[in-house]
Formats: sequence, structure tokens, C-alpha cells
Amino acid sequence: MADNGWDAVVISGSDPHASEYVASRWQQVTWLSGFTGEAGDLVITMDHAGLWTDSRFFIQAVRQLEGTGVVLHKTRIPGAVSIPEWLAGRASVVAVDGLCQTVASVTELEKAGCTVADVPDLLSALWPDRPGVPSTPVMTLSEESVGQSRYSKLTELRKFLLLNDCDCILVPALDQIAWLLNVRGEDIDYNPYVISYLLVTQSDAFWFAGKGDETPDPDTQDSFQELEADGISILPYGEVKGILEDFFRAEGQRVFLDLSSVNYSLYQDIAESAGEENIVSGTSPVILWKAVKNSSETEGLREAFLEDGIAMEKFLFWLDTEVGSGRTVSEWDASEKLSSLRAEIPGYRGDSFANISAYGPNAALPHYSTPESGSAVIEPRGLYLTDSGGQYLFGTTDITRTVPVGECSYLEKEDYTLVLKGMIALARAIFPSGTAGCQIDVLARNPLWQNVRNFGHGTGHGVGFYSGVHEGPQDIRQNFNPQPLLPGMVTSDEPGIYREGMHGIRHENILLCRELETNAFGSWLCFETLTLCHIDTSAIIRDLMTADEIEWLNSYNRRVFETLSPRLDDETVAWLRSKTLPV
Amino acid sequence: MADNGWDAVVISGSDPHASEYVASRWQQVTWLSGFTGEAGDLVITMDHAGLWTDSRFFIQAVRQLEGTGVVLHKTRIPGAVSIPEWLAGRASVVAVDGLCQTVASVTELEKAGCTVADVPDLLSALWPDRPGVPSTPVMTLSEESVGQSRYSKLTELRKFLLLNDCDCILVPALDQIAWLLNVRGEDIDYNPYVISYLLVTQSDAFWFAGKGDETPDPDTQDSFQELEADGISILPYGEVKGILEDFFRAEGQRVFLDLSSVNYSLYQDIAESAGEENIVSGTSPVILWKAVKNSSETEGLREAFLEDGIAMEKFLFWLDTEVGSGRTVSEWDASEKLSSLRAEIPGYRGDSFANISAYGPNAALPHYSTPESGSAVIEPRGLYLTDSGGQYLFGTTDITRTVPVGECSYLEKEDYTLVLKGMIALARAIFPSGTAGCQIDVLARNPLWQNVRNFGHGTGHGVGFYSGVHEGPQDIRQNFNPQPLLPGMVTSDEPGIYREGMHGIRHENILLCRELETNAFGSWLCFETLTLCHIDTSAIIRDLMTADEIEWLNSYNRRVFETLSPRLDDETVAWLRSKTLPV
Repeated sequence: MADNGWDAVVISGSDPHASEYVASRWQQVTWLSGFTGEAGDLVITMDHAGLWTDSRFFIQAVRQLEGTGVVLHKTRIPGAVSIPEWLAGRASVVAVDGLCQTVASVTELEKAGCTVADVPDLLSALWPDRPGVPSTPVMTLSEESVGQSRYSKLTELRKFLLLNDCDCILVPALDQIAWLLNVRGEDIDYNPYVISYLLVTQSDAFWFAGKGDETPDPDTQDSFQELEADGISILPYGEVKGILEDFFRAEGQRVFLDLSSVNYSLYQDIAESAGEENIVSGTSPVILWKAVKNSSETEGLREAFLEDGIAMEKFLFWLDTEVGSGRTVSEWDASEKLSSLRAEIPGYRGDSFANISAYGPNAALPHYSTPESGSAVIEPRGLYLTDSGGQYLFGTTDITRTVPVGECSYLEKEDYTLVLKGMIALARAIFPSGTAGCQIDVLARNPLWQNVRNFGHGTGHGVGFYSGVHEGPQDIRQNFNPQPLLPGMVTSDEPGIYREGMHGIRHENILLCRELETNAFGSWLCFETLTLCHIDTSAIIRDLMTADEIEWLNSYNRRVFETLSPRLDDETVAWLRSKTLPV
Repeated sequence: MADNGWDAVVISGSDPHASEYVASRWQQVTWLSGFTGEAGDLVITMDHAGLWTDSRFFIQAVRQLEGTGVVLHKTRIPGAVSIPEWLAGRASVVAVDGLCQTVASVTELEKAGCTVADVPDLLSALWPDRPGVPSTPVMTLSEESVGQSRYSKLTELRKFLLLNDCDCILVPALDQIAWLLNVRGEDIDYNPYVISYLLVTQSDAFWFAGKGDETPDPDTQDSFQELEADGISILPYGEVKGILEDFFRAEGQRVFLDLSSVNYSLYQDIAESAGEENIVSGTSPVILWKAVKNSSETEGLREAFLEDGIAMEKFLFWLDTEVGSGRTVSEWDASEKLSSLRAEIPGYRGDSFANISAYGPNAALPHYSTPESGSAVIEPRGLYLTDSGGQYLFGTTDITRTVPVGECSYLEKEDYTLVLKGMIALARAIFPSGTAGCQIDVLARNPLWQNVRNFGHGTGHGVGFYSGVHEGPQDIRQNFNPQPLLPGMVTSDEPGIYREGMHGIRHENILLCRELETNAFGSWLCFETLTLCHIDTSAIIRDLMTADEIEWLNSYNRRVFETLSPRLDDETVAWLRSKTLPV
């Protein structure tokens, strides 16, 4: 920093594709500070090192930063001081790795009066064994399994470009590329993506996915051949900058960019070579197309939730038996068991995120990270919470169950019942076409609000099809997101309650938005619950529930039993029958 | 038009103060077309005359425009063509009365390619007996009754100006002036305002309220003396333009303007004399201050709803008796009776809007305008709806009751019960501080949505204190209005259902937002129901209601009986007792 005349360095927790989860090459914040949360940025000055992260990671950050000298700066709280605000007046020249910064974040720094030095791969000089760009096998998904060919998707995109008076689009978002090209990889944990960029013009598609491996994987070779036969040119990932510069300089075309995923360095290159007047910025239409599942995808998802439910029931039976018979089971043991049961499913490609396996007070941390060693032992009393999911060739799952592992207090039961009432209210919702998630979010909260209780996270996030477990553009939360819920969208329904030092409860099912009917009052939508795993009734206070809610619960548990029992062994069936008796 | 070279004239339905209700002088649309709805603009070209209005007034417009040659243009429907869109290409020079246009509406015309000719009081030349600016008696309200002196309110406003780096503010909105100066008048039907402008500087306040009467009303004289003693200079309304021009030219001050209520002509004058760089535009803080009632105002409102409830119960008893004994009662008769009962209340200053008195299918029009002659006779079957309110020295009321006047069909009862469930759900709501109306609107709709039914209007609007029956900034509706509900705000709770040709149902109570408690989950708000008038239980399908809802209903009716019966005669008490028996 001194040699270069930098007053501060900002290290982003993201990668060149604005990913939520990043490959080890871009785990720069972890490498420097030891903090492993999915969201966090580091600022280093000559006399200070600070980590900026939000409430999901406060406790984890405090633990992981202990003794490092790195100071925690809390974001998204009242009075929070953002990085640009903090740097204003403290630093004149700020160095960033522009590959890992959005255009907006650099603009904020400049607005704060900083001069920004863009140094791509800034940390490489100090990090001799820094991992390279990952190069896992690339696979293609058949048109049959995803319901739409890449040709058809690219045609849609080209129509969009014409309508927006653009000649081409650069797509850096990995989930959008995976959807557009019907390709998947394993470059990032939990996210089946290929690290790459995609440039689509009216006549061509250039995929910057070549990693320069001397002996590329045979699967990748086959996939690349299939793609090239479909008119998609494979180009080297490492040369995207130079190739794009040449392309834009020569062609002088109008390019569509979604600035929420184009990194600052690349944007600067394009602005210089294409001319800023030739950049049209807006929201990539792929986000919405991808969120609205077609019938092949919903069929796949139903299959995924069936298989996933079988693994979950096997797991819950195992847990019940182990803890009930007095054997020592730690949170980590339970997590490993659950992953191993999912791994038995044909088409399983890994977990969709790190299992949350939390007993007692640990479950009061909504984003608890179960430690491999020293995790809590699950005692035969109170509540155990597991939030987990799988990646399958035919879908992505996400489920939370909170189960009693012994006697529960009245407060535990009351909280359990109120959260369940909220989950049921949202699952049963019927609403007019055009309704956005924030307009029905309160349905999941009202039973808690009526009892002067609440939870501090969103109620629902979009879920991908063998893709990210979090996807937009829709969500169900208090924030005003104007995106209406559309038939085909898949969204979670996961209210909760968290009492520090006591217990945490979350019930999560996944909902598919569907058309219901059209009548004199307009056209109507509803949800189909995709998740198939019984809801434990032993912690319910029946008197707090309405007849409609009890009917929903009994009918759901009956459906779970009837659907899953043919696929379970006798012992598990007997157990599941007892667990799904009507209340 | 030909003489002046105008291709089109736009006649606004508003007045120089952007009022919802206007004095007869500004009922220009009515004078030209016969249409009497509160919202409507007229466009006249050489070969066309069109009225632009929204769905509340479609039926009324069709009836009133019949035979006039004026064509109805529907607004706020899919595919609606706005006035600027319609004029684009059709008219080059468009004349407007800039006194009755907002800056935004003129800008829209200019964006549509029109040259706008501003001709203040454009119609006066053609309208020899046009009414003058009204000059009803001006009265002042005591600090005791409104809880805050005008001095204190002006001091708050002056602090706001300092914070916003402004020297003065021009307030043209009549409700804001009434609140700031603690003055009321009767210049406009249903709205107790004085037509005027107010200019507030750090040292002075200039009220353009003098109407040049040769022998001003003694009340007005007294009020003006009281105001002048408080440092408020009274200036002539008719000279606002010239005086402001001189003021801004001489002083060169920065002025705060809320463009939603400053008319185009006046804005142009100010921009020219003060310089556009000295105009700071924003939302007037008075809107929010006025909406948050203090304890004197809420005390007054409780009294107003008590008195109003007595009138309502007398009315409903009379209606029950008359219709039950076979006498002929028309909708208009009922409306007159209700107004006469309100008029008996000490402190009554008029109705707060034109009564809606609607029987059977007429109630399916949410904004039914009861005709003086030929209104429907109330038969002893089905449902009768009355939506009405009063202006009292100590508050403004608004109430809707839908009552069975004989046998009801199952569908009528089902709709009645579902709408009531929605009203109760909102009345019972408990919600965190910071919650906006759109985040809880669904509570009032969900019982209908669950049965695939809905209503097409908002659920709740703000209600003033001896002021307009509609006020902002809060509301409870689907639209994203970010204004949180704050303790002290008064908002209606009025879900409904409308079946064309069959029946219409709306239940409306008025809710006062209050603090509930603060606990580990945050700080919490709830509602107090101000309205005191029983809810008829004979049309309820009890099985559709939850235990909580029945408890709320019985407890509400008990409270109504206990509060009102000491003020009613024996016969009415006996009747009310039977009407409020628990279900």
C-alpha cells in the first residue's frame, strides 16, 4: 500500500460474476481475515482493518475475527456506516480489485471523495498459492429435462435485444448462463455453475468457458462439442478482456448490460472500447425467464421434492431413534447423516447449501454454521432445527424442519404452533394475478404479530431448477419488491421465531405458484406445496389452531404418508404412520 | 378558440388549491358538461368534447352526459389514453386555466408536443354569472380544542424551513392552512376550509384570505383580529399574484413549494420573480403533522364518534321501524333523515361528504350518488347500505353500515360475513412500528380472497380532525405507499364486495393507530376502533367465523350498547339491546 500510494484497500467478498457463493480463488476475505460468511467486505488502511457484514453473520464474525485485530462493522442496522461513508475523509486513494466490484460500489466510493485505483487480481501478488480459476467438468442438460432448447432461449434473448435496440448482450451472471445454455458445472460449492462469461449477438454466441486445461475432462469435451454444434463458440475465460475489447472496438455495437452483475473492470473496458453511448443498461430478462418454471421443470421439481422427502424422513426416523435410545448424536453427526442420505439419491449432485443443524439455543441463530468439531450434542429434550437442501439433476430443494427431540416447554410449543400457523396461511393463500410477495408476506407473520412476536428475515426466496437455492426476481418479504408472483415461480415459505439463549423455530416448505381460476372478480393464483416431509404434530397446541389450519395439516401429513410410504422400509413406514396420525 | 388560435382547451375539475371538492366558482366541468363527479377533466377541440374520469364515476358520467355530445374517456383502466396522449398530434396549441392546473399536468402536455397557453380564469369571459370566490365566515379553533397553538405550529414550520435551507414557504393547500392557523370556514361543501394562500417566512406570516367584502362578517372580523394579534397579516386573496411577485422580486429568497398543490400560474409567477434556482420543491411537512393527531384531537374525535353513533343508531332504529311496518321509504328519504339526525348534534357543521344511501343493486356501485328524485324504494328484503359522515367542531366522522332490511339470500349473508371478517381482521391487527398500510391491507382482503372474491377500491384512507374526510399521507391499500402508520393517525377500515345487479356490501369503522408495547421483538402498534355503532348480526353466517372474530364482534356490540344506551330513549335502547345480543 505504501509503495503504491494507496491509503486504503477494499477487498470484496464477491467474485467477477457478482456471485453469492464464490470459488476458493475469490475467498479473499476468508484468506485475509478468517471470516467465512457468504457476505462480507474487508477494508484495510495503514492503521485499521475492518470487516463489514450484516446481522446474519454478526456472531460468526465475532468468533472468527477474535485475535485477528480485524474490527467488525455492522451493516443493515440503524445508524450503520457504509464503507464509502467510513472511508470519506479517511482515505484519498483507494485500491480495489475491480473484477470483484460492481460499478455501483465504485461509484459510491468516488461519490465519497475517493480516487479509486482499479487493480485487477490485486491480491495475487501477495498470495503465491492462490487457487486458479476452477475447471470442473461441464455437463449439458437435455431439452427434455429442462423443457426448452438453448436455441429457443437464445432466440428469445435476441428478440429482447431487438426490442431494446441493442446488438448484443454480455451475460456475466453464472446462473443466467447455466439457464441460457442448459449447462451445469461444479466450479462453486452448492451452486452448479460454470465460471464463464457469455456474449450473445444476433448471429453468434461466444462462451468464455475454456479454462486452458492441457487435458480437458472428456465430459467437458463432449459438452463443448454439443454446444459448438448449436452454434456456440467456446473461447478462453482468461482472455475475455482482450477479446471483448477487440470485438467492441471493431464492431461499434450497442450492448445491453445488467450492471448488477457486470464487474467494474470489465465495464470500464467495454465503456472504453464500445463507447459509453453504446451501453444500454437494464435488468437482464433472463432473471425473470429463469424464475418462471415450465412444465418439464416443475415435473422435475416434484420428483426432486419426492426424493428429498424420502431422505428427510429416513433422517428424521434415524434421529428420533438415536436420540430416543440415548445414543450421543452431535449436530455435526446429524448433518453428516443427512447429507449421506441425500447422496444415496440417483441424480444427487451435492447439497444446495451448507446444512444448518442446530440444537436448542443454537437454533436461535437463523444462520447458524454448525462447526465440524465441538458441535452441540442433541439432548432428549426441546427442539432441533435442520435447514438443508440438495442439488439434483432434476431440481433444487430447500427444507427446514424443527422437531421436538423430547419434552418441550409451553413457550416452545406455543412458538412452534404460531410459526406453523403462519406457514400454513401462506401455503393456503389465494390471491389475484398481479400480487407481489410483499403484499402477502403478512399472512405468514400475522399469527406471530397477534402475539406480539416476529422474525427478522424474509419469509420467502425464489428457488432455482438445479441452480441456485436463492434466486430472484420475486420474493416474499416486507420490502417493496414490485415483481408480481407468476404461475411457475417457486418460492420458499419459511417463517420462524428466535429467542436468544433459548430456542429457534423455523418451518419451511417450498411453494409453486399456480393458476387457480378466473371469475367475475378477476384471475386468481394459488400455491402448490412441493415439499414432501411430515410436520411433527407432537409440539402443537391444538387450541391455538383454527379448523381450517388443522384440516390443512392433517391433509398435508396424509399426503406425505401416502406418497412416501411405498418407498420406505416397514420400520420407517410404521414410524411415519404414527407421526402423521391426524390431530 | 378560433379567435385565439387554440386547437384545444383543457378544463380541470380542480381549483387553484388542488382541492378534491371545489366551490361552485370552480365547478367548471359541471357548468360545461353537467357532470357532477368529484374527479373529471374536460377537453374541447373544434370537433370533439370529452370527459376524462375514473371508474368511480363511469355510471354517473354516462347518465349525466347523455344527450350532451360529450364523450366519456375512461381513466385508470388497462389501455387508458391520458389527456396528453390523446392530444398529442391532435392539437398544437392548448389553452388551460393555469390556476386550476398542476405544474406536472402542464409539463405532461408540453411533453406531448403541445404549446400551452396559460389563460387564468379562462371561462369567466363566457360565464357572465360565474360565482365569485366564496367568502363564508372565518372561525378560529381554540388551542384547547386542537391541542397546539398556531404559534407553535408555525414555529415547527420555521424550523423545517431552516433545516431545508429555505427562507419561506407558500402553502396553497386549504386543509394545511386550516390546520396551521387553527381556522375553519365554509367556502366549500363538506370541507371546512377558507379559500386562501399562506406565505410563512422566518419572521412573518401572510394570509391571503381577505375577500374584499364591503361589510365583512363579524365572526370573520373577530377571527382576523385574533390572527393579527398572533402576528399573522391578512392580505387580499385577489392580489396574491401581484403581492407575491413584488415580495420575491424584492427579497430574492429561497422558497419551499409542494408542487402537488401549487398551481401552474402561480408557480410561473414565482419562478419568474424569485428565480427558478431559488425554488426548493418537496413534500409539505404539514401533511404528516396534520395526520398525526395529538391527545386533544383524539379526545375530540372520540366525542365526535360517540355523538355520530347516537345519530346512526337513531337512524337505523327509524329505518328498521319504517321499513318493518310497511311504510314507503326511498333512499333519498333515508338520506335526508340521517342528515337531519346529525344536524341535531351540538357542534354539527354539516355532512363530511354527500351521503351514499343505496338499496339492493344500487349498493353494488361503490360511489353511488343517491338522486333527489326517483331514488329506489327500500323494500323489506335484502340489504341497504349507508356511507355517511359528519363535520363537528371536535372532529370528522365517516361510517358505512350495511344492514338487512328483511330476508337475505345465502350469498348475501356469505358476502356480508366475509367482508365483516376482513374488517375485524384489520381492526384487530397488531404490527411492528414502521409498518405501512400496504403491508397489512391483505388482512382485510384475505377472507374474501380465500373465497376467490375481492373489491376494487382501497381498504382505508386517512380521516381529518374537523377537516377533509380524506387525508394523507397514509392509507391502507394494495399500492406501495411507503408511509408507515404512526400512533395518532386515523384511518378508515372499509372492505366491501360488489355484485353488479345484485347487491353491494361495505362495513366501515374508523381506526386510531396507537402504541401497544415494546418487547424483545421490537415496538408494536395496534388500532383503537373509534366508530360506535352496532354491527347487525342477523345476516351473519356464524360457522364462517372464528372464535376470535365472534369474541371481537360480541365485545364491540356490547361496548356500543353500554356507551350509547345512556343517551338513547327507552324504545331505542330496547331495540339496540336486541340488536347487540351476543351471537
